[in-house]
Amino acid sequence: MSEITRHETGPRMSQAVVHNGTIYLAGQVGAPGESVTAQTQAIVKNIDDLLARCGSDKTKILQATIWLASMGDFAEMNAVWDAWAPAGHTPARAAGESKLATPDYKVEIIIVAAA
Amino acid sequence: MSEITRHETGPRMSQAVVHNGTIYLAGQVGAPGESVTAQTQAIVKNIDDLLARCGSDKTKILQATIWLASMGDFAEMNAVWDAWAPAGHTPARAAGESKLATPDYKVEIIIVAAA
Amino acid sequence: MSEITRHETGPRMSQAVVHNGTIYLAGQVGAPGESVTAQTQAIVKNIDDLLARCGSDKTKILQATIWLASMGDFAEMNAVWDAWAPAGHTPARAAGESKLATPDYKVEIIIVAAA
Repeated sequence: MSEITRHETGPRMSQAVVHNGTIYLAGQVGAPGESVTAQTQAIVKNIDDLLARCGSDKTKILQATIWLASMGDFAEMNAVWDAWAPAGHTPARAAGESKLATPDYKVEIIIVAAA
Repeated sequence: MSEITRHETGPRMSQAVVHNGTIYLAGQVGAPGESVTAQTQAIVKNIDDLLARCGSDKTKILQATIWLASMGDFAEMNAVWDAWAPAGHTPARAAGESKLATPDYKVEIIIVAAA
Repeated sequence: MSEITRHETGPRMSQAVVHNGTIYLAGQVGAPGESVTAQTQAIVKNIDDLLARCGSDKTKILQATIWLASMGDFAEMNAVWDAWAPAGHTPARAAGESKLATPDYKVEIIIVAAA
């Protein structure tokens, strides 16, 4: 069996879990109440930071699942995503509408990446 | 290629699928119409049972995705989750609002774990 | 580290990503505005085609996550799914309600499969 490595492990969740060459990140969010642009920018920075801690980076993302509290924010989220997504190395992606922990959270992104 | 092992395989889905050291569980639900607490308790028992059948346990969960029919039930679900989550071994987690198969289902949890 | 292979890689996402014997497909959708039956039929054909491109097929699907814009379409989607799902090889599955990119999209399916 391959070992499991966890990062930023709290009582409810870990921010990153690595097993068998695959990294699973907790759903990343931005600061509640900020704009969709600002929240998405914070999210992609969180993803970059967590992947770096695991020895990986955004060119190795395998799967991204995006939840938007309102699909009306799809274009605003995508503008930040498209500027950040690594050319030639984009992940499999899906985006759907899902209300989040509180109404002040507008975007959440769930990442699976290669270690 | 690594082999695939399936458990409780029906015509629509399997309850657990194991491949390459990784276990994928079907979305687990409780009894329709019961309280959020009772449904979440049933779900975590289902998860324990299915992981045991695969030779694993809750200390090896890599990723948990939680769907709540209403985010108003977030705290009630979390109380059960927090009591059950294994200290020092918590998974990457995300929780969002998603209506489920019928309105009587209030919580669903999707698990990926290490074998 | 295992290599990553990407298929149909655009600036926003890839349609399929393969790593370490596991295939991640982008969320598949049908033609906007068509019936739930027609959209689901297009989706399962997309899945068959993408898996074939990766040297895999529907008997090797590990996990399926289904988003429906309306849970009122659950039975109609399931009729197509049940006719297509490979007997004895069904994946772990979860289905929830999530509005999609535009209201004309009624179903989206996210697949993880073995290579």
